[in-house]
Amino acid sequence: MKKKIGLFAVAGLIALVSTPSMAQFAKAEDAAKYRGAAMALIGSHFGRMAPVAKKEAPYDKQKIQENIAVLNVLADLPWTAYGPGKEGGESRPEVWSDSEGFKQAQDKFKTGMTKLTAASDTGDFDAFRVAFGEVGKSCKSCHDSYRKKK
Amino acid sequence: MKKKIGLFAVAGLIALVSTPSMAQFAKAEDAAKYRGAAMALIGSHFGRMAPVAKKEAPYDKQKIQENIAVLNVLADLPWTAYGPGKEGGESRPEVWSDSEGFKQAQDKFKTGMTKLTAASDTGDFDAFRVAFGEVGKSCKSCHDSYRKKK
Repeated sequence: MKKKIGLFAVAGLIALVSTPSMAQFAKAEDAAKYRGAAMALIGSHFGRMAPVAKKEAPYDKQKIQENIAVLNVLADLPWTAYGPGKEGGESRPEVWSDSEGFKQAQDKFKTGMTKLTAASDTGDFDAFRVAFGEVGKSCKSCHDSYRKKK
Repeated sequence: MKKKIGLFAVAGLIALVSTPSMAQFAKAEDAAKYRGAAMALIGSHFGRMAPVAKKEAPYDKQKIQENIAVLNVLADLPWTAYGPGKEGGESRPEVWSDSEGFKQAQDKFKTGMTKLTAASDTGDFDAFRVAFGEVGKSCKSCHDSYRKKK
C-alpha cells in the first residue's frame, strides 16, 4: 500500500514537472511582465476613446466597435497572470491577501465591459458615454486598491 | 483662387490639430511602450506553444486554437505604433530607414500566422509543428534586423 501511494506521488510529481501547461509562466517575473503588458494595452485602447466620450473627437460607431472588440480580447488576458506565487511587479500584496475583493473588482470591470459593448452596438452616443464612464470608474477603483502607487 | 486654397489649407490644419484620431499616440514614447507591450504578449502567447511543438507537452487542438485566436488579435496590434516620428524604444533605426524591408518582414509574419491558423484548424499535429516553426523563424529574422540587441 505504501509503495502504491509512493508510485502515485512520483507519477504526480513527474506530471507536474514534465508537462508544462500552455498557460504557465516560468517565473513570477514573467507573469508580472505579462499582466503589466496586458494592462498597458487595455489602458491604451480604453484611453483612446476618452476624446470621443469628452466630445473632443467625433463619435464613429464602427471605429468604436472595432476598438471595443480588441478591448474585449485584451480584457480577458491579465487575470491568468495573478495567482499563488505570482506576486510582484506593479501589484500590491492586497491582490493576494484580499483575493475575494480583487475578484469582485474584476467582475465589476467585466460587467462594465459587457455594458459598454452593448452600448457601442446600439450606436447611441449617450449610452456609449455613460457605459464608458462606468468602466473607467471600475479601472480606477481597482487600481486605487490593488496597484502600487506610481 | 489663391484665397480658396488658403481656406482649404487652414481647414485641413484645423482638422489635423483639433480632431484627435482614436489611433493616435500622444508621444513617441507612448507608441514605443504600446508596441513593446504588444510584442511581449505576442511572445508570451506564441512561446507557450513551444513545449507542444517540441512534444514536451500534449497537443490539445482546442487549447491551441483558443491561443491562436488571441494571438491573431495581438498580431495586428504593433504595426500602428510604428510610423514617422515614433522612433525609439527597442526599435532599431532600420525600421524607419528600411521601411520597405520592415513591411516585408511584417507580411511574412502575417502570412505565417494565416498558415498557422489553418494548420491548427485541421488539428494535425505535424501541420501545426511545421507552421509554428515558420512563424518562429519570421519573428527571429525580423528581430535580428529591426530590434535592438538585448
